[in-house]
Amino acid sequence: MQLVTNTQVTPVAFQWPAGFYSDGIHIGLRKSKKDFGYLFSKVPAAAAGTYTTNQFQAAPTKLTKMMINQNHQLQGLLLNTAVANSCTGRQGWDNALQEQTWLANKLAVDPSLIGVASTGLIGAQLPMDLIKNGLPQLSPTTSDAVTYAVLTTDTHPKKVCVQFELSGHLVTMTGFAKGSGMIHPKMCTMLGFVTTDAQIDGDLLQTMLSDNVDDTFNQITVDGDTSTNDMVVTLANGYADNPSIQPHTPDYTIFNDALHDVLGQLAQQIAADGEGASKLVECNVLQAANMTDGQKVAKAIVGSNLVKAAIFGEDPNWGRIISTIGATDAAVDIDHVDIAMNGMALVADSLALPFDEAAVKHSLQAPKVIIDVNLHHGSAHGQAWGCDLTYNYVKINASYHT
Amino acid sequence: MQLVTNTQVTPVAFQWPAGFYSDGIHIGLRKSKKDFGYLFSKVPAAAAGTYTTNQFQAAPTKLTKMMINQNHQLQGLLLNTAVANSCTGRQGWDNALQEQTWLANKLAVDPSLIGVASTGLIGAQLPMDLIKNGLPQLSPTTSDAVTYAVLTTDTHPKKVCVQFELSGHLVTMTGFAKGSGMIHPKMCTMLGFVTTDAQIDGDLLQTMLSDNVDDTFNQITVDGDTSTNDMVVTLANGYADNPSIQPHTPDYTIFNDALHDVLGQLAQQIAADGEGASKLVECNVLQAANMTDGQKVAKAIVGSNLVKAAIFGEDPNWGRIISTIGATDAAVDIDHVDIAMNGMALVADSLALPFDEAAVKHSLQAPKVIIDVNLHHGSAHGQAWGCDLTYNYVKINASYHT
Repeated sequence: MQLVTNTQVTPVAFQWPAGFYSDGIHIGLRKSKKDFGYLFSKVPAAAAGTYTTNQFQAAPTKLTKMMINQNHQLQGLLLNTAVANSCTGRQGWDNALQEQTWLANKLAVDPSLIGVASTGLIGAQLPMDLIKNGLPQLSPTTSDAVTYAVLTTDTHPKKVCVQFELSGHLVTMTGFAKGSGMIHPKMCTMLGFVTTDAQIDGDLLQTMLSDNVDDTFNQITVDGDTSTNDMVVTLANGYADNPSIQPHTPDYTIFNDALHDVLGQLAQQIAADGEGASKLVECNVLQAANMTDGQKVAKAIVGSNLVKAAIFGEDPNWGRIISTIGATDAAVDIDHVDIAMNGMALVADSLALPFDEAAVKHSLQAPKVIIDVNLHHGSAHGQAWGCDLTYNYVKINASYHT
Repeated sequence: MQLVTNTQVTPVAFQWPAGFYSDGIHIGLRKSKKDFGYLFSKVPAAAAGTYTTNQFQAAPTKLTKMMINQNHQLQGLLLNTAVANSCTGRQGWDNALQEQTWLANKLAVDPSLIGVASTGLIGAQLPMDLIKNGLPQLSPTTSDAVTYAVLTTDTHPKKVCVQFELSGHLVTMTGFAKGSGMIHPKMCTMLGFVTTDAQIDGDLLQTMLSDNVDDTFNQITVDGDTSTNDMVVTLANGYADNPSIQPHTPDYTIFNDALHDVLGQLAQQIAADGEGASKLVECNVLQAANMTDGQKVAKAIVGSNLVKAAIFGEDPNWGRIISTIGATDAAVDIDHVDIAMNGMALVADSLALPFDEAAVKHSLQAPKVIIDVNLHHGSAHGQAWGCDLTYNYVKINASYHT
């Protein structure tokens, strides 16, 4: 596992890779905000996806997974927010199929190349009349409107755009995601989309996506709840004209680093914009017995309500951190755990260190808080991201009415 | 597993069983509230305990477990709040031993018959001077003062007192507990003490305690965090003079029901007084494939932040409940799940039912909310208790300073 850090890829202003178009509009699913959109490639793109492990997988998630798994190709996606089309039974499934057919006709492509993605309230049926009326209003733009059309309680869209070279060909990779509450991914989280004009085989893209989701999207948590609609889809349409990426080549490494960087940045943007969040919390676990332990401990710490509330209160309450570590089944040498917050050592060998509380408290006012834990038990790392637990989290979720 | 319901035991006004004495006083560990106490039997009592599975088990928990496991006998316990004596290294262990010796001398009994229990802040050493000065001030009373001396953020003590007959002998069983935050027991929770004048062998008592803790204390959660100091200790001194309880007898059943009832009531009192809680939440899972699944699903639901916040908002948000069920690995027939709140059906066969939202919302204003889930997948039950997630939870934990 690689810690998420900057790679040699170059961040650039938002733009779509060559051959990708999209749109986002308001059709009345939400009061006034954008709630409906699409994203497509001019040609069929190599496609890969990861999907929620929630047993109540929503109809759109099930359908898109089915399409991608046929032969790892996809050309277009229809997106909406406000209604998740989850726990909607046979009618929900038929509605997802209807959406697929409608977009296939609009793009004049085979329905098997179309996926759908919905997010929002569980248990309600899609207002198909609004969607039917909305479809003709979608036009192929190069704007970022679609990144707004999937938001729920998010305060802003999550976007990343990078460029890099593969065998002398300039490649663009653009990702966007939504997600604010009900975030505790298993295998993947929320809605995430990565588009690139790189040329790569679909099966290889699937392997790379699955590997990179494990230590990015799967390592964020906002509230410990796993949604029924989670999915991350990656499309590569080959417009960059690079020789198709092969394993064990420099191009593979560059592309993999870029994908990991884009997914990692989107995951952190989601955690930072968690419901009610005022701070992004990053936990780095060092010298774990193995990666599983490191990841488990890091995620447990950023997921602890008590740790999250203490960080909201700018309180260096390391007792809650060490208690959270001990509550896991990770291999721990209970007499040799070190803890630091924002680079200031609080605990060495599991015992309190004298520290400048005022200085630590002050540093906890920053929008990003970093917790470093050293388990002195091996050489593996773990890393996870979350946010603080605030009054607004409670407010948002006590009043997000059915 | 038996659902916690009333048994044939008789609830009575608070009193200690014959031969038990205790006291609770203020010695300066807290600003002004009682913070120090003891509990003892005039004669050595059969003793049983269950303890936290947190890897950072606190010194007092470790010492008391050691004493009880020698031969399941104990006569006295020294208790304090404010300082947990957890993550305190060698000095913390020596301090626990010192406390044990001091109380043994005061009661003129062998130190091996003395246990200690601490709760409060992790990482700080016990102020031994205050404790040394406090000991002589403890006197053998029959008051309930000790039930106050173990409180932290609790708003009130948790107490249960019942009486029942064993072979014609009147038996009293009195339990008390503390716990408000950092409550997500594994094997046992917080500090809980049950005293009885029944006559019973220590090993048998241990078996009965362990069994009954599984579906009582182990099924409550306030915030998903597991403390380092959890323990439940039961003492039986035989003063009731009943023929010692034997397995497979009517007396065994009556005593076991009483123990289950007392532990269950204490557990529910802890959940109802969870940090910031305004409501007790009970989840009953019916027709699960097996008891493990039933217990897992019930505990997941009462533990979900989104469900807890919705209940605080008096919002019958069943989507969060079904999503929580699906996020577990329990055997679920995804098309046949029923959900009801306070007896009103919201979901049948995993689909929304029309329901009187105003009526459900009104019922959610009650101090106890009951969520019933039917998995239609077997014949096992599950039951768990928690509380709502409120602004006060965040306030308490953002300002409970180190």
